[in-house]
Amino acid sequence: MTPDEPVPAFSDAWRYCVGTGRTELALRRDYQDSLALLQRDIGFRHIRGHGLFSDGMGVHRSYTWQGERRVRHAFTYVDQIVDAYLGLGIRPFLELGFMPPELASGSQTVFWWRGNVTPPASHQEWAALVGDTVSHLVDRYGLDEVRTWPIEVWNEPNLTFFWQDADEAAYHRLYEVTAHAVKDVDAHLQVGGPAVSPGADDWLDRFAEFAERRDVPVDFVSKHAYTSGPAQHVPFGVHQTLAPATDLLTQFATPRERLTGTRLAGLPVHITEFNSSYRPDNPIHDTAFHAAYLAPVLAAGGDHVDSFSYWTFSDVFEEAGVPTSLFHGGFGLLTHRQVKKPTYHLYAFLARMGRHLLARGDDHLVTRHPDGRVTVLAWAPVDATGATPGPERHRVRLSVPFAAAAAAVHRSTVDEEYGNARAAWQHMGGPHSPRPRALDLLREAAEPARRHGRLPAGNGRVDLDLTLTRHEVTLVELDPVRDETPQWWDEGRLLGREG
Amino acid sequence: MTPDEPVPAFSDAWRYCVGTGRTELALRRDYQDSLALLQRDIGFRHIRGHGLFSDGMGVHRSYTWQGERRVRHAFTYVDQIVDAYLGLGIRPFLELGFMPPELASGSQTVFWWRGNVTPPASHQEWAALVGDTVSHLVDRYGLDEVRTWPIEVWNEPNLTFFWQDADEAAYHRLYEVTAHAVKDVDAHLQVGGPAVSPGADDWLDRFAEFAERRDVPVDFVSKHAYTSGPAQHVPFGVHQTLAPATDLLTQFATPRERLTGTRLAGLPVHITEFNSSYRPDNPIHDTAFHAAYLAPVLAAGGDHVDSFSYWTFSDVFEEAGVPTSLFHGGFGLLTHRQVKKPTYHLYAFLARMGRHLLARGDDHLVTRHPDGRVTVLAWAPVDATGATPGPERHRVRLSVPFAAAAAAVHRSTVDEEYGNARAAWQHMGGPHSPRPRALDLLREAAEPARRHGRLPAGNGRVDLDLTLTRHEVTLVELDPVRDETPQWWDEGRLLGREG
Amino acid sequence: MTPDEPVPAFSDAWRYCVGTGRTELALRRDYQDSLALLQRDIGFRHIRGHGLFSDGMGVHRSYTWQGERRVRHAFTYVDQIVDAYLGLGIRPFLELGFMPPELASGSQTVFWWRGNVTPPASHQEWAALVGDTVSHLVDRYGLDEVRTWPIEVWNEPNLTFFWQDADEAAYHRLYEVTAHAVKDVDAHLQVGGPAVSPGADDWLDRFAEFAERRDVPVDFVSKHAYTSGPAQHVPFGVHQTLAPATDLLTQFATPRERLTGTRLAGLPVHITEFNSSYRPDNPIHDTAFHAAYLAPVLAAGGDHVDSFSYWTFSDVFEEAGVPTSLFHGGFGLLTHRQVKKPTYHLYAFLARMGRHLLARGDDHLVTRHPDGRVTVLAWAPVDATGATPGPERHRVRLSVPFAAAAAAVHRSTVDEEYGNARAAWQHMGGPHSPRPRALDLLREAAEPARRHGRLPAGNGRVDLDLTLTRHEVTLVELDPVRDETPQWWDEGRLLGREG
Amino acid sequence: MTPDEPVPAFSDAWRYCVGTGRTELALRRDYQDSLALLQRDIGFRHIRGHGLFSDGMGVHRSYTWQGERRVRHAFTYVDQIVDAYLGLGIRPFLELGFMPPELASGSQTVFWWRGNVTPPASHQEWAALVGDTVSHLVDRYGLDEVRTWPIEVWNEPNLTFFWQDADEAAYHRLYEVTAHAVKDVDAHLQVGGPAVSPGADDWLDRFAEFAERRDVPVDFVSKHAYTSGPAQHVPFGVHQTLAPATDLLTQFATPRERLTGTRLAGLPVHITEFNSSYRPDNPIHDTAFHAAYLAPVLAAGGDHVDSFSYWTFSDVFEEAGVPTSLFHGGFGLLTHRQVKKPTYHLYAFLARMGRHLLARGDDHLVTRHPDGRVTVLAWAPVDATGATPGPERHRVRLSVPFAAAAAAVHRSTVDEEYGNARAAWQHMGGPHSPRPRALDLLREAAEPARRHGRLPAGNGRVDLDLTLTRHEVTLVELDPVRDETPQWWDEGRLLGREG
Repeated sequence: MTPDEPVPAFSDAWRYCVGTGRTELALRRDYQDSLALLQRDIGFRHIRGHGLFSDGMGVHRSYTWQGERRVRHAFTYVDQIVDAYLGLGIRPFLELGFMPPELASGSQTVFWWRGNVTPPASHQEWAALVGDTVSHLVDRYGLDEVRTWPIEVWNEPNLTFFWQDADEAAYHRLYEVTAHAVKDVDAHLQVGGPAVSPGADDWLDRFAEFAERRDVPVDFVSKHAYTSGPAQHVPFGVHQTLAPATDLLTQFATPRERLTGTRLAGLPVHITEFNSSYRPDNPIHDTAFHAAYLAPVLAAGGDHVDSFSYWTFSDVFEEAGVPTSLFHGGFGLLTHRQVKKPTYHLYAFLARMGRHLLARGDDHLVTRHPDGRVTVLAWAPVDATGATPGPERHRVRLSVPFAAAAAAVHRSTVDEEYGNARAAWQHMGGPHSPRPRALDLLREAAEPARRHGRLPAGNGRVDLDLTLTRHEVTLVELDPVRDETPQWWDEGRLLGREG
Repeated sequence: MTPDEPVPAFSDAWRYCVGTGRTELALRRDYQDSLALLQRDIGFRHIRGHGLFSDGMGVHRSYTWQGERRVRHAFTYVDQIVDAYLGLGIRPFLELGFMPPELASGSQTVFWWRGNVTPPASHQEWAALVGDTVSHLVDRYGLDEVRTWPIEVWNEPNLTFFWQDADEAAYHRLYEVTAHAVKDVDAHLQVGGPAVSPGADDWLDRFAEFAERRDVPVDFVSKHAYTSGPAQHVPFGVHQTLAPATDLLTQFATPRERLTGTRLAGLPVHITEFNSSYRPDNPIHDTAFHAAYLAPVLAAGGDHVDSFSYWTFSDVFEEAGVPTSLFHGGFGLLTHRQVKKPTYHLYAFLARMGRHLLARGDDHLVTRHPDGRVTVLAWAPVDATGATPGPERHRVRLSVPFAAAAAAVHRSTVDEEYGNARAAWQHMGGPHSPRPRALDLLREAAEPARRHGRLPAGNGRVDLDLTLTRHEVTLVELDPVRDETPQWWDEGRLLGREG
Repeated sequence: MTPDEPVPAFSDAWRYCVGTGRTELALRRDYQDSLALLQRDIGFRHIRGHGLFSDGMGVHRSYTWQGERRVRHAFTYVDQIVDAYLGLGIRPFLELGFMPPELASGSQTVFWWRGNVTPPASHQEWAALVGDTVSHLVDRYGLDEVRTWPIEVWNEPNLTFFWQDADEAAYHRLYEVTAHAVKDVDAHLQVGGPAVSPGADDWLDRFAEFAERRDVPVDFVSKHAYTSGPAQHVPFGVHQTLAPATDLLTQFATPRERLTGTRLAGLPVHITEFNSSYRPDNPIHDTAFHAAYLAPVLAAGGDHVDSFSYWTFSDVFEEAGVPTSLFHGGFGLLTHRQVKKPTYHLYAFLARMGRHLLARGDDHLVTRHPDGRVTVLAWAPVDATGATPGPERHRVRLSVPFAAAAAAVHRSTVDEEYGNARAAWQHMGGPHSPRPRALDLLREAAEPARRHGRLPAGNGRVDLDLTLTRHEVTLVELDPVRDETPQWWDEGRLLGREG
Repeated sequence: MTPDEPVPAFSDAWRYCVGTGRTELALRRDYQDSLALLQRDIGFRHIRGHGLFSDGMGVHRSYTWQGERRVRHAFTYVDQIVDAYLGLGIRPFLELGFMPPELASGSQTVFWWRGNVTPPASHQEWAALVGDTVSHLVDRYGLDEVRTWPIEVWNEPNLTFFWQDADEAAYHRLYEVTAHAVKDVDAHLQVGGPAVSPGADDWLDRFAEFAERRDVPVDFVSKHAYTSGPAQHVPFGVHQTLAPATDLLTQFATPRERLTGTRLAGLPVHITEFNSSYRPDNPIHDTAFHAAYLAPVLAAGGDHVDSFSYWTFSDVFEEAGVPTSLFHGGFGLLTHRQVKKPTYHLYAFLARMGRHLLARGDDHLVTRHPDGRVTVLAWAPVDATGATPGPERHRVRLSVPFAAAAAAVHRSTVDEEYGNARAAWQHMGGPHSPRPRALDLLREAAEPARRHGRLPAGNGRVDLDLTLTRHEVTLVELDPVRDETPQWWDEGRLLGREG
């Protein structure tokens, strides 16, 4: 391929959105410090989490005045959070839910912090809540800004856990009321759903049919994807089997396929949650295996969807209760207190890839930047069954197009040893609440190994021969060399010997 | 008074401790930013709040293993919070409570965040919780450090609201078990109680008797003080009458008086909460009146007790729910987002006073620093009944000892106009959720007016003649002048005219 | 005027550029801290200073290799400085000079830091220096960026102090070589001159003639403006008479007038330096007088020129040697260590004005923002002769267009007392090197007084009646009030009295 | 060795002081950012540099008033610098020099920034300068503080380069006048000299004799140590031979030996400068070789002297002119813009060593911390002649005392590949002025490799078997393991397979 040939773009669907623990947690310092780090190293565009209308947010507030029940919508925390998000360079992907207790028709709740999962007692009052919230945001942040924020109606209504009786008709009714409330504020705001969990693609079919039948606005379609089997519980943790990572790509692909020919055909598809395990207490999330497992998904997910949102960016997350130990199998790319996990680096590596796609294979991805730099992401194969530990060594040989005469090579590695804070933590005895010194050591252990060198380029190509260790994910950056070494310089004379 | 005469010390009981919303809120960024500001301008030594063992802290965690119920004590958040406190130069004043739900004997709770206020189902398990927590803290922060943290048992057990049935015997039992659990970790740790609300001084008598009878360790005695009458509710707010501020001093004084002759005589007395109104939704807290009202209390409180802890440092506080408006009558010295209230400045002014007490009167306090600087705090009288608005002008004339020949004067003023963000906010229409620009204007409006001048000193004294506006609190700093103006300098020639 | 009428724009020529001490000083922390503050409160677009090629910058470096003289151009400090500027949101206004010593044809220098002011020994080597520097900047920062940086050739060549013999022909030759060297890099880069000092407008005529005769590229014309008379020296200071401030506007206006009909007609005119006194040791710069003196110039300067650059933003400036005292008459808007002078606030006030010009008079300027906010800048008249101290009181009555029913008023004031750190410093005895506590007091004294209120609006107007003290400059911000005070709120019940 | 045996202390003479480029450079942001990093990772106690009284500091200022020459001592920059130092947790080690131009008896200068190296024209005026400076510092920072700052008289007076004619009698006279001027301020201030360069130990003998003869106060003795041969110049650089590192220890040892029996016997000895090469343009300073070369010196230097001060902490240094390239052979532990060199890590590793010395050998140092942690510093042997490249592999086997049953191992490595930014920079083509992205890559390449594991301990010892690569310096931290892994945890079930 010569520089003049058109080169396909490498999709950045992987960075469009990231998940977060319930909205209220965004008020925390640890959360904001983590997000700041994430945005510096990765740079997600949107963030999505539950609980915008839950108790702790204090939005929907009824009171009595002159003998009459009234409602005040209060945005004290909403504003603090959105201000913080925008200040950190990330935008909301709004998820509307759960039900404010004073507006709920029932008492069923989810999680220790009691997200109410019942339909509204009054759809009119719910519509007022939605409309008022969106209006307030438009008023504060501007219409141009808010039009870029997708608005999703509820979360996983197909699960009784998240929506009373998984009542599909009730969800459709909620969706309809909500979508109109949003569009009444501004017709160009984007609203969508149905945010179903894996295995419920039939909901998509009926969602399309419902939208057509009722002529309801839908601007995007959303669903979730996970690959884990049932939880085998131990105290404060689970074990689960995993399907191969390609199963995620299969799950991503279904909406476009199924919605062909429906009113929803061609709409953006957002995977508003994905991960291996859907449990926040599965240690697989903390491992080098996990990065290698997900690498091919991040490399190819953009072929199938407009976004796929890693659930979640940080272990500041309480759906299985307050974590009792630093490493506890949380979803986070970062633990509490900003210890980076291998999957964090997978994302950080991807954030250094170029916008032009030069090559892609089972174990590699090659891109080019406008400045001529070429970047290679390579990963070792994994055995998701756990039957074998995965190969000790894996060799990747590539010949990549390269315009300059030589390449400066920077290689960053995460594997079972390097960039692997959980392994270091296990060596330390797995301290539940590490002291500051231990946290410092873990942060050091969490950094990738960085190596460097120089490779010749010939005929417009550089040949790479990479050996990867078990579960290694590696980023190789090839920069064109412009040699500024003075002609008089002789490294052999460093110690004063005549040349 | 000449410099050689011994000068009495000005007590810093006012800065020994400050109150906070429930412990969990300390995880928040707004909270920590506020505390950082406070510590820079004021510098409290300890901080005390409820809810160390509440749900949101996730400390006490039961689980089942091999068919048996077990408990893990988890300090994930405790450590984050104490690390943050110490990093900000403030130490915990530990309050042990509320009851972890899995350890509770009943289901009664307080506040929307459900602090359980029932005795433990197992006093042994409670003792283990206390002992393990204190041990963990000693292990992490060192014994020398933790010995400086007073440990208080429960909060206001004399109120049925905070302790089921206000059962005094049950409290004594809890106290006894707790005190021993603490002392089993280290005999020099300080434990105390009974943290009663105003009007329950008879509890002190019986606490002393109980301590003697059961030979229970007590290292300090604690109670609370407020001056407000019953709440007259309006939506999201209350009105209340206030007793004169001197009533607070009277409340402070009773423990030393009543405990004379008992086993508890001579122990440190800590007022672990005080304020005018005990309601977090009374706008009086936000006013200039409030600073002038409390000024004489801060000036004289140290005569009666070892500490009196302002309840609370910040409006990040949720006992009456999430605040629905920036100004809402919260206890805070600071609103959300660090807008300073007049009482904040009262404390900041006090933090600039010297350690030597030169004079004190109904409307002033005069101190000296080791470097010869003299500081005067003066305040206008208030009418706590509200029958009159307080005098428009109040004159304070003082002659203060001063060693140098002239004093540079810096005067900082807070009154109905200056340093009064609530008044500015009212002029703006009382926006519930002000935009960033409005917050900036409010932060400007919240700053005291600063004036300056120079006064001659003669015969070792400076004469001050201060006129105070309504509800003014003013700090006058008198610095010895060492004149470095060159002999050739002629201000009259600034514009080039020959002198 | 109704909101629908077209409203003229208020020029922001006043913020296009600001001056700085020699380029090398930009490496300093105090300098960068000051600039950060300035950019937060004011937000200048460009910055211009001397000495890009002086010794301390280390750019032009000759060496011998294989018996031959060669030159290396080194950008170690240039890059550090430009990186810092761009990071602070400000762009270079490049001034090419002084002469690198190894390239100079003579030994004449200016200032203790020895800026060489002689023509190049080799115009070819100078052209290489210029070309290489500009190429390097384009390479590092991008062509689109560098095209926005005006490039000025030398400084005040009409003074023998700054250009050997004030040799005009030599300047023209330098200009020609330089302009071509710049344009050889890119034809769209902007180059200009002749950067003459006041009183040398005849140079402009000959510059135009020369440009035409030699067909030399000129993209803008530049000159300087000052109003002070000759220096009356005292140790470490001067006194000077000042012309009225309107004299500055007259000086601004001449280039457009004189260049009419020449090849340079219609080009942008940049006043690349202006101030009252041209001396960095004249205390007039530090006074409240100075802000009131310059207010009408800032309000109207944009009528005459494309920019007028205040000389200089900070007292970090060494042309009269290292300052020996905190206040010493430096040009700075800020002293060392970020004490704000009254003129700083004049600029900060202007930065809050709107983009629409509603009215302008001898003592006021009225603008409107897109959000309906109206801002008024008003100033007291001054007597620049010093014959009288200026009136004690000055009244400004205005009726300004205003769409809402009421205006929230925020008034910020700088005068002889408020926002006047030099006056406070004089009261303190004028300490040459104030201690940290004194610096804190001065920073407090340097803040404007902030008052607030509310005014009714009727018939689309608000009536303002402002009384200004001596040398006061005041900013009045009128925000439309949207009243969110609940209907139940009764301020009269604050202290619990029944309404 | 059992834990109960007394263990000798490991001297921290290595951290007592560090060198800096001329004092004025401390005003720079890059300098202060570098120092902040250094203090976080290493924590030196004092800092020493030239030029306190040079032009750029603006301290000594003569002027004329009423026809008479007078002097003002101005501390504008001195205060800024000392404030910054103390704020960063480091104290001055004052070096009094060079001569203010207006006080100099001659015109000889050193360096492009013209440090005057001639005796004072008036010893009385010099004494006034010294006395006034020290008095000012005592006044500003307190006597207790300044008594901890050693005060050294001049720099390398034995070199004609630094002291006109290397006139020993003139130096003695200067010393005597200076010492008395210091002691006149306070008798407990510490003054010393003669700060001679290597090879001038005979000056020490005569300094002792002179001190005795004239009864001059001397509180410490100082000299410098370097191991390089004569400079072989190339443009912007040199090559030099080096003596073996042990030669430094020999140089350190001589003052105590030679001064036995003199009046100066037993005084503290400070090596106020040391390094390999004395040139700021010798690339050896930037290499991994350099860290391995100096490791045994840092491990043992404290046996011979009270301090030995690395010359210098940062490449912000201009004695060979402004650096023209990022890596240029500067003395710094850090380059401009905070790229860490291998020797930086040597110091950072040493900063993690314990206060108890367990073992020391030719290639290792073993210490223990109070908490039971054991740290090992090991290094590969180097060939300082350059005749061979040094062994490719070097094995260090140690058995170290260790109280716990197992050790968590953290190993940090710097060698030819890891933690070696210069090597990475060479691979990139040696860019003189790297762009931001390149700086980021270099900062990554500059970090040590971090590995981790666990080792069993038996009989109170841990056996270590370390293989070091060429020029490796490695820190091994052994932490006692307290295993908190739950009994139910089975890593084999990570992927859900039944155990």
